[in-house]
Amino acid sequence: MRTDAQIARGTRLEPISAIAQSLGIEADEYEPYGRDKAKLSLGLLDRLSGRPDGRLVLVTAINPTPAGEGKTTTNVGLSMALNRIGRRAVTTLREPSMGPCFGLKGGAAGGGRAQVLPMEDINLHFTGDMHAIGAAHNLLAAIVDNSIHQGNPLDIDPQRVVLRRVVDVNDRALRNVVVGLGRRVDGVPRQSGYDITVASEIMAVLCLASGFDDLKARLGRIIPAYTRDGEPVTVDRLGVTGALALLLKDAVKPNLVQTTENTPAIIHGGPFANIAHGCNSVLALRMGLKLADYTITEAGFGADLGAEKFLDIVCPSAGLVPDAIVLVATVRALEFNGGVQGAALDAEDLGALDAGMVNLEQHLDNLAKFGVPVVVAVNEFPTDTAAELDLVRERCAELGVRAVGSTVFADGGAGGVELARAVVELCEQPGEFTPIYDAESSLRGKIETVAREIYRADGVTFSSMAQRQLERLSAQGFDELPVCLAKTQYSFSDDPGLLGAPRGFTITVRELSVRAGAGFVVGLTGDVLTMPGLPSRPAALDMDIDADGRITGLS
Amino acid sequence: MRTDAQIARGTRLEPISAIAQSLGIEADEYEPYGRDKAKLSLGLLDRLSGRPDGRLVLVTAINPTPAGEGKTTTNVGLSMALNRIGRRAVTTLREPSMGPCFGLKGGAAGGGRAQVLPMEDINLHFTGDMHAIGAAHNLLAAIVDNSIHQGNPLDIDPQRVVLRRVVDVNDRALRNVVVGLGRRVDGVPRQSGYDITVASEIMAVLCLASGFDDLKARLGRIIPAYTRDGEPVTVDRLGVTGALALLLKDAVKPNLVQTTENTPAIIHGGPFANIAHGCNSVLALRMGLKLADYTITEAGFGADLGAEKFLDIVCPSAGLVPDAIVLVATVRALEFNGGVQGAALDAEDLGALDAGMVNLEQHLDNLAKFGVPVVVAVNEFPTDTAAELDLVRERCAELGVRAVGSTVFADGGAGGVELARAVVELCEQPGEFTPIYDAESSLRGKIETVAREIYRADGVTFSSMAQRQLERLSAQGFDELPVCLAKTQYSFSDDPGLLGAPRGFTITVRELSVRAGAGFVVGLTGDVLTMPGLPSRPAALDMDIDADGRITGLS
Repeated sequence: MRTDAQIARGTRLEPISAIAQSLGIEADEYEPYGRDKAKLSLGLLDRLSGRPDGRLVLVTAINPTPAGEGKTTTNVGLSMALNRIGRRAVTTLREPSMGPCFGLKGGAAGGGRAQVLPMEDINLHFTGDMHAIGAAHNLLAAIVDNSIHQGNPLDIDPQRVVLRRVVDVNDRALRNVVVGLGRRVDGVPRQSGYDITVASEIMAVLCLASGFDDLKARLGRIIPAYTRDGEPVTVDRLGVTGALALLLKDAVKPNLVQTTENTPAIIHGGPFANIAHGCNSVLALRMGLKLADYTITEAGFGADLGAEKFLDIVCPSAGLVPDAIVLVATVRALEFNGGVQGAALDAEDLGALDAGMVNLEQHLDNLAKFGVPVVVAVNEFPTDTAAELDLVRERCAELGVRAVGSTVFADGGAGGVELARAVVELCEQPGEFTPIYDAESSLRGKIETVAREIYRADGVTFSSMAQRQLERLSAQGFDELPVCLAKTQYSFSDDPGLLGAPRGFTITVRELSVRAGAGFVVGLTGDVLTMPGLPSRPAALDMDIDADGRITGLS
Repeated sequence: MRTDAQIARGTRLEPISAIAQSLGIEADEYEPYGRDKAKLSLGLLDRLSGRPDGRLVLVTAINPTPAGEGKTTTNVGLSMALNRIGRRAVTTLREPSMGPCFGLKGGAAGGGRAQVLPMEDINLHFTGDMHAIGAAHNLLAAIVDNSIHQGNPLDIDPQRVVLRRVVDVNDRALRNVVVGLGRRVDGVPRQSGYDITVASEIMAVLCLASGFDDLKARLGRIIPAYTRDGEPVTVDRLGVTGALALLLKDAVKPNLVQTTENTPAIIHGGPFANIAHGCNSVLALRMGLKLADYTITEAGFGADLGAEKFLDIVCPSAGLVPDAIVLVATVRALEFNGGVQGAALDAEDLGALDAGMVNLEQHLDNLAKFGVPVVVAVNEFPTDTAAELDLVRERCAELGVRAVGSTVFADGGAGGVELARAVVELCEQPGEFTPIYDAESSLRGKIETVAREIYRADGVTFSSMAQRQLERLSAQGFDELPVCLAKTQYSFSDDPGLLGAPRGFTITVRELSVRAGAGFVVGLTGDVLTMPGLPSRPAALDMDIDADGRITGLS
């Protein structure tokens, strides 16, 4: 088996101009960034506004495990398989965060023969979107501290600056810092900290914006601080909406690349799937829907987090209706949910698989509540046995859901043809998409609905701080916003150790905060790490590049 | 008079492919970044290695004043004027720092009819070089703190981590910070701070590297910290030379753009001119010398800082010999040196001009010591009178130097034809370039030579800390490095208030530190601000961009 890097090097990329032309994009509607990347002009959407939308397919997964699920690989492979059966498809993906590549995690560009390329660019600076978002965020932070320093005309409470700074590096030492030390000219001391750039509200804003004017409107509504009287101080009030938009003038344009089989891929935006909504930009989706018959997108983490947010935050906000959902699982990950770990995952274990299936089944049951047709994609590993695959198929069939094997990692698009056919069929079925909660219900009601209907908690406990915050947010008029619950991705519950389909637990909401620009209220359950650390032996130590550009250690 | 932005909008840019072709750059030797920018492959230098170098012309200036000198405008205008008289010329420039654009300062892309374009891209993210340098720098910082946190196997002294973090934002609150607060998993608390990205040693390294292998060698020699025994801990020792080089794989490639008259401009790298050497990259210079008959470059601040460093650090390190120097002055700036300020600068004042000429004369006398032929370019303002211009010309003639008027701001290349002819003549004169000090002399000796010969100080006082550091650096084998003195740019002395050509002062060297990767020893005199702050009304407040991309407030 060749490595991802070997497969990537062996792929003949089409000129990005040819990829753009294959989608009917006109010469003045894209700008090349190097030979293999391009930025797509928003004017494209104006030109194609009269064209009917194609089909929208969401790829999601069971709860993530160390055994791996292969959501991005399945997404990419499905788009290639659709093209093989004569349907024009594009894959849309999130932009990977660069920082984690130098820590433990590999990149996020698919794998095997189902990758998006050029992998080394996509995983590093790409077209600079992440850096632009970081620059805009950190300019805003400097503007806030400068306003306090320069006589504090807006009466900002230095203790209630809620905006932290961001950097796209895993840097635990920045989680908690004191800024403004030194002499009087060096600002006002206060405690703060850094998040990784994908956690920036500006990332969420960029991903939910429907166009440039909406981007500016959302930027202007961001609340980085509060006055001493507790009143929100918005970006509009600080007067830098235009400056932030200027810094994002290119970042707002979706990026075009291609897969290992030259299928067009639109990669744009990559918000966290806990404190944000975990989906690529709405602009990328809209472009896909106008340019192709099938747009395959994905949502971060498992379906309890990413899919729930796609269906309850993204689709209602953008006015999108998904036509089908692909739920990705692997035999290994299901066996992990059934209590098996490590090397034992390589052996057939029908008992563990049977036990772990409850995780998959609960996700299927949840997704059925949204009224969108679902297919299960079993991302096959060489260690899977026929009996194991049969068991998954049978259990799904009992719920009325088809489970289809996929070997796109090993075989590329050819390994996803059966899945592609299933998705095409699914898209012909009538759906009745409906979010899990009404926009009109209270914030508390929305949180309780998600906890009950999706997580299957017995109830929700709000900390005394969270209760005060619920009241304040309601008084400030934020009750109609959707909720974005930050919870561990490893379990339906807020305890990462509870695998499978836990019951008899409650969810504790520790803290609430509004993302007035993005347009949702975040509820924190448990500890959520918004700044990863580096491990004792960071991946950076094994990376190299020579004068001819040959790269090692980046995957 | 049209504004810079109006002139820029009225300019018809050639496709960047046409600019590349005009220089004989082959199709696989450049990558487009958008429609108007390209990155140049280092392979270009291999292909052209047998071609003789063109002429190298340095543009420098008298000490900067609030009245303005116009060094970049003159540089750009001269390159256009040379093309008008049938010489193939390119301008090479530093990449502007983005942060200050949102504070007080305008951009750094020339002005009037002598600009490089697209101004809004060059002044903002450009092709991402600055962000890549910042990412590499901050990854290194995280690796150092992580090594301390993960058992500290290299015995790094947390009190002797000399590397600060960087960001390309004017943010006074980050000058002094405490990092590593929180719980045990959040790292080891220590005091540190942020500089603006252009102050990163990685910027200086990138600008002095002769190729990719040299870039890696220099990165590996950077010393971010010392052990508890005072031994240097290098990037090589930390094991991340390859990872940093990987992050710089595109940033190391010079950027091609064009002027308002479609003259090729190579813009690459932009180190500070106080704690670093203040010149664009050696790779940009080498490309210019191979591709054009005349390469016009410039050095930061006045000739006492930028030109001295170009001639004593850059040229010896890169093996370059400059053919001519253009010293830029304005009547207004000379009158400012003669004691006039504000609106009074608009009126003819031959007395003040006569008094201020001593600043220009000392720069000329200094430059003569380097053995490179010099011409004075008087960047004309509408308020200048014939008598004032005559006075400058006469005083220069007394020193055997020609002073030529330039109206490139108002007239473009046509306003620089006389200057261009003078430069061509100068380049035919035999020069005997020699740095001001021998590489073999001690660090102390080198500092004393610059202070005596360039600044005209009576002597140098070393603080007791600086004396100890001199001994330590000498013992560590750094005596053969050139020195990079950080001094106020406003005066020949270390007191910004002493204009003209001060005498009877001494220079105090407060602190020394080695930039082992860049290859120089920095000596700090007075206070040097490596992180600017925002003013009470930042320029960001007046910036805007609409959905059609029309920008206001950025200049």
